[in-house]
Amino acid sequence: MTTSIGVGLIGTGFMGECHALAFRAAPAVFRTRLGARLEAVADIDAGAARRAADRFGFARATGDWQDLLADPKIDLVAITSPNLLHKPMALAALQAGKHVYCEKPLALNAADAAEMAAAAAQAGVHTMVGYNYLRSPAVAFAAQLIRDSAIGRVTYFRGVSDEDYMADPAVPMSWRCRRDQAGSGALGDIGSHILSVALHLVGPVAEVSADQKTVIAERPLPAAGEGRERRDGAAATTSGTATVENEDQTHALLRFADGTMGTVATSRVAWGRKNHLAFEVFGTEGAILFDQERMNELQLYDRALAPGDRNGFRTVLTGPAHPHYGAFSPAAGHGLGFNDLKVIEVAQLLDAIAGGPAAYPDFAAAAALERVSEAIGRSAAERRWVGVES
Amino acid sequence: MTTSIGVGLIGTGFMGECHALAFRAAPAVFRTRLGARLEAVADIDAGAARRAADRFGFARATGDWQDLLADPKIDLVAITSPNLLHKPMALAALQAGKHVYCEKPLALNAADAAEMAAAAAQAGVHTMVGYNYLRSPAVAFAAQLIRDSAIGRVTYFRGVSDEDYMADPAVPMSWRCRRDQAGSGALGDIGSHILSVALHLVGPVAEVSADQKTVIAERPLPAAGEGRERRDGAAATTSGTATVENEDQTHALLRFADGTMGTVATSRVAWGRKNHLAFEVFGTEGAILFDQERMNELQLYDRALAPGDRNGFRTVLTGPAHPHYGAFSPAAGHGLGFNDLKVIEVAQLLDAIAGGPAAYPDFAAAAALERVSEAIGRSAAERRWVGVES
Amino acid sequence: MTTSIGVGLIGTGFMGECHALAFRAAPAVFRTRLGARLEAVADIDAGAARRAADRFGFARATGDWQDLLADPKIDLVAITSPNLLHKPMALAALQAGKHVYCEKPLALNAADAAEMAAAAAQAGVHTMVGYNYLRSPAVAFAAQLIRDSAIGRVTYFRGVSDEDYMADPAVPMSWRCRRDQAGSGALGDIGSHILSVALHLVGPVAEVSADQKTVIAERPLPAAGEGRERRDGAAATTSGTATVENEDQTHALLRFADGTMGTVATSRVAWGRKNHLAFEVFGTEGAILFDQERMNELQLYDRALAPGDRNGFRTVLTGPAHPHYGAFSPAAGHGLGFNDLKVIEVAQLLDAIAGGPAAYPDFAAAAALERVSEAIGRSAAERRWVGVES
Amino acid sequence: MTTSIGVGLIGTGFMGECHALAFRAAPAVFRTRLGARLEAVADIDAGAARRAADRFGFARATGDWQDLLADPKIDLVAITSPNLLHKPMALAALQAGKHVYCEKPLALNAADAAEMAAAAAQAGVHTMVGYNYLRSPAVAFAAQLIRDSAIGRVTYFRGVSDEDYMADPAVPMSWRCRRDQAGSGALGDIGSHILSVALHLVGPVAEVSADQKTVIAERPLPAAGEGRERRDGAAATTSGTATVENEDQTHALLRFADGTMGTVATSRVAWGRKNHLAFEVFGTEGAILFDQERMNELQLYDRALAPGDRNGFRTVLTGPAHPHYGAFSPAAGHGLGFNDLKVIEVAQLLDAIAGGPAAYPDFAAAAALERVSEAIGRSAAERRWVGVES
Repeated sequence: MTTSIGVGLIGTGFMGECHALAFRAAPAVFRTRLGARLEAVADIDAGAARRAADRFGFARATGDWQDLLADPKIDLVAITSPNLLHKPMALAALQAGKHVYCEKPLALNAADAAEMAAAAAQAGVHTMVGYNYLRSPAVAFAAQLIRDSAIGRVTYFRGVSDEDYMADPAVPMSWRCRRDQAGSGALGDIGSHILSVALHLVGPVAEVSADQKTVIAERPLPAAGEGRERRDGAAATTSGTATVENEDQTHALLRFADGTMGTVATSRVAWGRKNHLAFEVFGTEGAILFDQERMNELQLYDRALAPGDRNGFRTVLTGPAHPHYGAFSPAAGHGLGFNDLKVIEVAQLLDAIAGGPAAYPDFAAAAALERVSEAIGRSAAERRWVGVES
Repeated sequence: MTTSIGVGLIGTGFMGECHALAFRAAPAVFRTRLGARLEAVADIDAGAARRAADRFGFARATGDWQDLLADPKIDLVAITSPNLLHKPMALAALQAGKHVYCEKPLALNAADAAEMAAAAAQAGVHTMVGYNYLRSPAVAFAAQLIRDSAIGRVTYFRGVSDEDYMADPAVPMSWRCRRDQAGSGALGDIGSHILSVALHLVGPVAEVSADQKTVIAERPLPAAGEGRERRDGAAATTSGTATVENEDQTHALLRFADGTMGTVATSRVAWGRKNHLAFEVFGTEGAILFDQERMNELQLYDRALAPGDRNGFRTVLTGPAHPHYGAFSPAAGHGLGFNDLKVIEVAQLLDAIAGGPAAYPDFAAAAALERVSEAIGRSAAERRWVGVES
Repeated sequence: MTTSIGVGLIGTGFMGECHALAFRAAPAVFRTRLGARLEAVADIDAGAARRAADRFGFARATGDWQDLLADPKIDLVAITSPNLLHKPMALAALQAGKHVYCEKPLALNAADAAEMAAAAAQAGVHTMVGYNYLRSPAVAFAAQLIRDSAIGRVTYFRGVSDEDYMADPAVPMSWRCRRDQAGSGALGDIGSHILSVALHLVGPVAEVSADQKTVIAERPLPAAGEGRERRDGAAATTSGTATVENEDQTHALLRFADGTMGTVATSRVAWGRKNHLAFEVFGTEGAILFDQERMNELQLYDRALAPGDRNGFRTVLTGPAHPHYGAFSPAAGHGLGFNDLKVIEVAQLLDAIAGGPAAYPDFAAAAALERVSEAIGRSAAERRWVGVES
Repeated sequence: MTTSIGVGLIGTGFMGECHALAFRAAPAVFRTRLGARLEAVADIDAGAARRAADRFGFARATGDWQDLLADPKIDLVAITSPNLLHKPMALAALQAGKHVYCEKPLALNAADAAEMAAAAAQAGVHTMVGYNYLRSPAVAFAAQLIRDSAIGRVTYFRGVSDEDYMADPAVPMSWRCRRDQAGSGALGDIGSHILSVALHLVGPVAEVSADQKTVIAERPLPAAGEGRERRDGAAATTSGTATVENEDQTHALLRFADGTMGTVATSRVAWGRKNHLAFEVFGTEGAILFDQERMNELQLYDRALAPGDRNGFRTVLTGPAHPHYGAFSPAAGHGLGFNDLKVIEVAQLLDAIAGGPAAYPDFAAAAALERVSEAIGRSAAERRWVGVES
């Protein structure tokens, strides 16, 4: 019989729902050694918590996340609140001896992230940060190909993470645009995803030279304060405006620790892009291309695997031969979706807790990412190459 | 509080797992009016049934599907057994007054399908047949565009459904290749999917002219009889061979009832194709292109929506503005996966039972599809245009 | 020193210009053994002939094409007049002992084409018909791959040739819509191109089952009679209309002589398509995909050339390793254009005349194509399978 | 009657052939006001010059390029020699009062380029530098869209120019790898093309932060000195090696003069890329994507031209509605090729000489580009942001 752990979820927005669905599905999909009991859900809006509990099958609901800490039936706390709250919630959960699964970015700055990583190390629990695109079977396969030297030694990484969710100047001001609540703008929100891929595929970054810009300087204030953000930007607004405090676009030249060249770029005002997390990795024997908007395929070039007149980038459709995919379907080309990535993430965390391979990226890995992110911000501000402290 | 119905599932293969996951997820994802209780799972292999019950959370398991019929806690029977068994199981379930959710194809021939449709009508229950690609948000959006005349009056439909799961001559003989167990070959297995799209998007078919061919005439016998098929074809085989009894490739010219021209084509030996269910629909004002291998996008051309020098096929990434998508994610371009299609299917059936719009395609619609399919087979055999009886 | 032959060109429209440019360029590009002297150009509009002579460097111009026949300096007559005139012009040129390079379709019907092929055989000269897409390096490479069994034995050919040049009902009536001047509609105009590819890649066709339809039944009459057609459809029209006499859409099931299945389909009212001559060829070991709108690439799948988890369709960019390309550029991926295809065609004809490999398709091959085309028309009219006379 | 100018061509390699073909074709294709007489061709290998003269129809051939300067029949000198020789040849031609058409890069460094631009200004003749991708109809159309504010105000430019012609470490040492003969590596060779696009589409660059790397440090020496380079890298080599003196990869962050963010990146060791000159331009109202490997199309997103559920990147196939295309073909989607770009370039130069719009980019514009290129090199060497002198 399967043992299980009790889960307490904080937050009921987009990511909160994803987590709830993932905890429901992961044990069945992956036959994890450890099951998950949905014990309680917390939201500052107690009614929203209640509704989420009903919908997803949590045993209890609360308007106070601190209730989860004292709950002996809860072994793991999942945090999907606004970025600002990640730190106090995670520290409290760690102190209560809970495993912690936290949405990205881990914190608003590198120092906070480091503090959280230290607390996790001291607590001796399992942690995981939600860089979900690392779970894309095609991304995981790219990592495996690189590890296996299928494209030789990596010589160049180029990554972008572009969306257009703030391209319309009518999208109102929100916490995402405030430095004290979100930290950086595009970089922390979606750029951190492509950074997570860069670090996972190529390795640590040693130095960066970056630039940033706020394209839309002022945004209308939402009608009723800065409440729950709506992804489609269709919120009612007032005639007042507020100044956007963080950047819409960031890009950076990278030097990885081994000397490899790289770049990352990100924009939240890139018209037409919906989830364009894309990269090109070149190596001495081949190349890999990927775009999350076509997440179920990868382009692979290997110089050796075809005669010259028959060679070219090969569109590999993911299937059970690739990482994670087989748990969902025995048939190639049938495709996973975004929500499945969270299922994979949760399964890996459950298996880690059950004694399997360590969860990745944990708080330590996410703190390392925040150091790169912070170096990018500093480089842009000081207009010079900045080394990443390690 | 949500009322719920009890579900009994027959079969624990690829589709059985999809159904189980879908019944678990659909009420939460779609907030259906009716919940689903996983009451019992049946498989001819009682151990497999047991393992599936543990994995997916069914209350009971059985090696005899007939146990489900007498079970008063079961309101709905889901059938994912080999094609041959769809008819006896569905008829028994209908007779027991259960709602029936049956995998495609409904039956091995049009007469059986008609008999099943009649039984369903008499039973007065809800039925649904698993033509899951109709749930693809892009396909559902195409249907909506056509209904709204966004491409004018349809003038031409071309559809294909190609895979390569039997392209390797080493793939052993299985029930799929036997006429008495599977009926037709590629046509019934994957071709029926593109037929379902044709009928849904354009309307009833009046006449067909078709051709078929078995490309690989003999296949090795599997080592231990013709047991559970393995999707990857890696089964051990003996030195003996058997003659394939149905076709690897079918194609047909169609005349829809309103005179519109169309074609459908299908192959199970199309190297490189994994789930290439694709269509082109042309109309008097535009055109729509789709490929299930890139299920999260659709190509749309509308002559009126751009100046001539800026016009072209537009790659529309699906999002919450499109059918079904918003239940899964508030963010466009994040993508659904194959398993999500079954979640949509189940949600529609639950909502139909709860008094919402009628489930589609039900047994009557699937029986109509089987009449077209049978006309295609007859046309190929008799090498002439054949009318579809209505 | 290079010997050369004298060229007489009939027609100064789109194709006339292509021929003129091609005769100017081919000897230099391909270093053909035989040069080409631009002796004379004829057009029913003598002024147009004069202007073309000035522009392209023909020595003489005339309003009477028959002048070319008696001209002893002219060794080769190139015919780019409306379809109706191909036969009388070609027969006269053959009788005058000239080599003949004729635009497609060779004639309005199979009997005329056969008569022309017989006359060519009797004249003992070289002939060539302008099925220019056979010269696309990617198409020629596909032919070579098939010949070399790179995708095994061919099991299925699917081809389409779609454009939207008559999709707008405001495009006026023209000779292209009249049966006595154009023969069939989409089939003869653009469908013949995909037929030429089918015959070249797979071989002779034995039987067809076809269907056709005129989607736009009436078209406005052009303001000043049915003069020179304008490709952009922007001609002034009167309030009168005329009935379109041939079809906008044709499709056909094919059985090749060796039993291989195939289809061809064509539409001149396919919104969004500009030059979508596309095909899929499946074989026992792989598959090839091509679309002339992306003429500089080809998609190739070969089951043997990659491990399963790294396989997929490979986008092969054409380059000097592929047929014809190297004459234009030493660098792969730089791309040829449409006009280059006519340069290749002319070079092959010049080399054939100089004693190289026989020109293809010559009148005999084009007459064989017309037999298939005619069988398609008859099959559609009689709604039955029709054998192709050989 | 058309007047014409006499052309003297220096060099008979890849670019020399392109120029020769372009001068032959341009007057006919574009009906330029001024014709072109092929007077003489020079190559250090007199036999190669002789063969080129025979092939392309030049009246005279010479082994000494200085012969062209004194030739009164020559009005324009076209320079396609190795980069090192551009300066002395161009200066001599300018001093002789000839118009000069020079291949890119104009010179090995910015000072030389400035000197050449000054000499051109003093000579009062017309000059043109061969940044041929600016002639791609899709690129020219992108420039027009931007000029017309079709995507609003530009907010971000990202460009790459990648090829794999030196990705194989077996490709021998050549002048391209020597600093005194080629200047920079990938940047000057192919990176300058994407720089030309950046400057043309967005405007002057004010500051850069760059990085560079030589990936393959040593290359084999060619068997017989460093003679004529072969594009396919298949030269015989000796056992000796030489140190590569310039970079394989360059990338740079840009700040345009108006504050717009941009990047350019280039690699000559990017496996799988053949002519991947690609860019993304984002604006306040839309975005444009382009890839020269699919030169006959462009991806356009405009937020206003479609309802939200029907919007996406539109694949615009070039046609006569776009710049330059109509001279080649009246039919959209038929496609131009690389060599056609040189035809356009020559036609624009001829028309400029005949009194039409000034040729672009002339020596002054190319010198401005070299200042950016040099700033990139300096920035990479000094690892700091470097301002571009203007």
